[in-house]
Amino acid sequence: MTDRVYETALGSSTKDKITLLGQDLAEDVMGTVGFGELAFWLATQRRPSTGETRVFEAVLAALADHGFTPTAIVTRLTYLSAPDSVQGALAAGLLGGGSRFLGVTEDCGRFLHDVLATAETPTDEAGWDALALDTVEKTKAAKKFVPGLGHHVHKDGDPRTRRLFEIADEEGLRGPHLELFAAIGRVHPRVLGKTLPLNGAGVCGAALADLGLPLELLRGFALLARTAGLVGQLAEELRHPVANDVFLSVDLNNRPVPPDPQR
Amino acid sequence: MTDRVYETALGSSTKDKITLLGQDLAEDVMGTVGFGELAFWLATQRRPSTGETRVFEAVLAALADHGFTPTAIVTRLTYLSAPDSVQGALAAGLLGGGSRFLGVTEDCGRFLHDVLATAETPTDEAGWDALALDTVEKTKAAKKFVPGLGHHVHKDGDPRTRRLFEIADEEGLRGPHLELFAAIGRVHPRVLGKTLPLNGAGVCGAALADLGLPLELLRGFALLARTAGLVGQLAEELRHPVANDVFLSVDLNNRPVPPDPQR
Amino acid sequence: MTDRVYETALGSSTKDKITLLGQDLAEDVMGTVGFGELAFWLATQRRPSTGETRVFEAVLAALADHGFTPTAIVTRLTYLSAPDSVQGALAAGLLGGGSRFLGVTEDCGRFLHDVLATAETPTDEAGWDALALDTVEKTKAAKKFVPGLGHHVHKDGDPRTRRLFEIADEEGLRGPHLELFAAIGRVHPRVLGKTLPLNGAGVCGAALADLGLPLELLRGFALLARTAGLVGQLAEELRHPVANDVFLSVDLNNRPVPPDPQR
Amino acid sequence: MTDRVYETALGSSTKDKITLLGQDLAEDVMGTVGFGELAFWLATQRRPSTGETRVFEAVLAALADHGFTPTAIVTRLTYLSAPDSVQGALAAGLLGGGSRFLGVTEDCGRFLHDVLATAETPTDEAGWDALALDTVEKTKAAKKFVPGLGHHVHKDGDPRTRRLFEIADEEGLRGPHLELFAAIGRVHPRVLGKTLPLNGAGVCGAALADLGLPLELLRGFALLARTAGLVGQLAEELRHPVANDVFLSVDLNNRPVPPDPQR
Repeated sequence: MTDRVYETALGSSTKDKITLLGQDLAEDVMGTVGFGELAFWLATQRRPSTGETRVFEAVLAALADHGFTPTAIVTRLTYLSAPDSVQGALAAGLLGGGSRFLGVTEDCGRFLHDVLATAETPTDEAGWDALALDTVEKTKAAKKFVPGLGHHVHKDGDPRTRRLFEIADEEGLRGPHLELFAAIGRVHPRVLGKTLPLNGAGVCGAALADLGLPLELLRGFALLARTAGLVGQLAEELRHPVANDVFLSVDLNNRPVPPDPQR
Repeated sequence: MTDRVYETALGSSTKDKITLLGQDLAEDVMGTVGFGELAFWLATQRRPSTGETRVFEAVLAALADHGFTPTAIVTRLTYLSAPDSVQGALAAGLLGGGSRFLGVTEDCGRFLHDVLATAETPTDEAGWDALALDTVEKTKAAKKFVPGLGHHVHKDGDPRTRRLFEIADEEGLRGPHLELFAAIGRVHPRVLGKTLPLNGAGVCGAALADLGLPLELLRGFALLARTAGLVGQLAEELRHPVANDVFLSVDLNNRPVPPDPQR
Repeated sequence: MTDRVYETALGSSTKDKITLLGQDLAEDVMGTVGFGELAFWLATQRRPSTGETRVFEAVLAALADHGFTPTAIVTRLTYLSAPDSVQGALAAGLLGGGSRFLGVTEDCGRFLHDVLATAETPTDEAGWDALALDTVEKTKAAKKFVPGLGHHVHKDGDPRTRRLFEIADEEGLRGPHLELFAAIGRVHPRVLGKTLPLNGAGVCGAALADLGLPLELLRGFALLARTAGLVGQLAEELRHPVANDVFLSVDLNNRPVPPDPQR
Repeated sequence: MTDRVYETALGSSTKDKITLLGQDLAEDVMGTVGFGELAFWLATQRRPSTGETRVFEAVLAALADHGFTPTAIVTRLTYLSAPDSVQGALAAGLLGGGSRFLGVTEDCGRFLHDVLATAETPTDEAGWDALALDTVEKTKAAKKFVPGLGHHVHKDGDPRTRRLFEIADEEGLRGPHLELFAAIGRVHPRVLGKTLPLNGAGVCGAALADLGLPLELLRGFALLARTAGLVGQLAEELRHPVANDVFLSVDLNNRPVPPDPQR
């Protein structure tokens, strides 16, 4: 192992200079590059355009906080229990960012990508609709769900979805993933017999995939957005605490029952 | 517990609208509010000015990635071991954000705040120098270190420090924490007998405190910045993996020794 | 939500008594129930027999520590970086307990269970061999691997495997999962054309499944065993630290390269 | 770094043999060493006596599960949100094992150790009482609390405390930490003017310290015990889920309020 070197284009430093992504951190990044722009750059190793940054930051805004989700409750309860460790409270909250509550973004991006990888790219709306129809039919036949379709609250349309399409259009960044997702929104009632909304988590996955971000990490961007939200949850907890009441609402209403040894 | 309600000014939603911080998320936040700006807003519940956002994002850029730190190595190794869980890899990396490697930012902000809380605010440089001199003397007498003073690599000055002062000055945001920190940089050689650099982590803590961000969460902002860095580390690991080589460099060089039962 | 109560058979307490699993904790558990026995009882809500406890503890011993695994390195590096948070160091290590390094135990238990769920239980060795042959053939035809088969070091046999079968036999606890796993060991060369060892992680999954432990949590028992191992790693790190050398071996051998913006 | 080797007395393996703590894992540990005994051995690198194992396992039993604590709720909520990652659910729960809910064990062990380190060891009960009296007086004068004193539920005595003293006495293992803790129980009313119970978490810390376990890791043993409890919580959640109801009890009772921008 003697000659092993570990290459990286991320941070490095010498006595007088700190380099990040090939840039002089102090002179060319600090004060010049916004945080969303930097996060994009770190993940792709290329600097995004202004339009790409705007779409990316719109996605992060859409995913940053959804109120008292399990992840928010977990972060507050962990801080209650271990106030000495802010990192533990944030990490605990992020660990809820799995398949059910934060996974749709990644699932949707991957789903659309897989369809596009094996299809010829349509050139007009009729072509997109045909591809979408085929996609929804095959998914239904396989007894699976189309990720990003449906929302338990926003049954008549998720306001984030319409807005993100609008922003992408303004920036000329509606790519094939968003096109296919939009077409699924148009044609799925013909197959499923009911109209479901395209949800916000799903459209975010489509937009991130169109931006060329790595599919394996789409969940990672949802988690980055959520980190900002969880810091906000902790800040609110510091001033207007609720975690102890949540804890007591469970603990004081516990009812001991006998063990239940059946598997 | 029957009537307990949980109040929050963060995310909430109705069938047709999603609200965040009292704003309409889709119409007034997405596409309009940058990610750094939003993170500041979430943490303080007030919208920052353009200048505040610029200083804040400069701090986040300064802290986002420092190359192969323990946190970066941990995230890469955890992803190697459990590639099914991006959230686990990010959370594991953040858990290294404790007292030693990411704690200086918080320690420095708190230290300066504590001094300012019990002193009359100086009105000129001589006044700041006098307060700083008193502070360094008392800290030395208590056999403690001034947080933010010294750096094992940038011995002649941390380039982030000079730059962050510059940005704060450009935005008219050099507040009392930065003033005191600067004065410590001027006067400490008189007490300590040697000249140490004001380090980047420390100046970031001073700047965050001047922005009015909650002191208890200064580490949280370092962790937010680092989350973007860790996503970048994972993206690089996906394309140019090093984690398995790191693992093998340890495992293949292990040498079994007998147990050592002394306490 | 006013009348919601949360039922549990686990811990509860009144002013004078603490109950756990329907037992008086102080009088009937402390000093009487071993830790492995208790962990089994907590997971199944039934008290294991002496033989079941012995097999279960043998599994935990087999999985407790494997030296400088990624999880061990992660725990040590996290402790180096955040020594204020033992819980963070342990949690970070456990987060590596995913599909690749700790997942075989769960994968193998589930695999065997799925086969058994759709087959008639054989009554003699010839019957087990036939079922195993069919299983290996189908798995190969599906271009998948049989979990628990093969080991990169113990190519001629994993010593834990032989021993765990022996212990299970001594206690009369070789159930259908272990039987099927043993048969796979006998017949797979006929299908695969080479002889692979039944590995220790796999046999542990088979044994845990035979004990009636919940399949969804087989990974949880591997993690419980590993928690004891990680405490041991931290104890050794306290006395004979290596984490800083591991960190430096990476950081000092880093080589900055230009960004690589291709996806 | 070329010649660096990493020494360890924990796990290692060759093609035919796995070694743990200098023992042959398969032949001398599996089926022979109980899980509590092994955890002790891993942490101290010496094999405990039967009596030491019994006291140690009594401590682990006392700390394994306390019902719907924040850590238990966090593990259940994280599993609800990310059922694909058992390791994440367990890690999230452990992250609540900080200063407030699991820290007393470590705090108490360290407190007693610090007193003993600077005092001559008493030889009779009167001597212990004098040392305890001095300790409680000094602690009160410093406006601090004696760790391990007081319990919000078991006001007339924590049943675990009496029992752990009993077990330690049966095994001849009441050492100086337990002696001092018992004496604090006898004399503190003279200083504090009221009688507080010696709590279970505290006596566990005293017992662990008497066993010679590393003080820096006393919290680690509480976390090991709790890992078994959290696996039990997950097993119960699988069969009798409550996490979704906990989540809804918060989310459905949320009340949006305007932002509150004061610091």
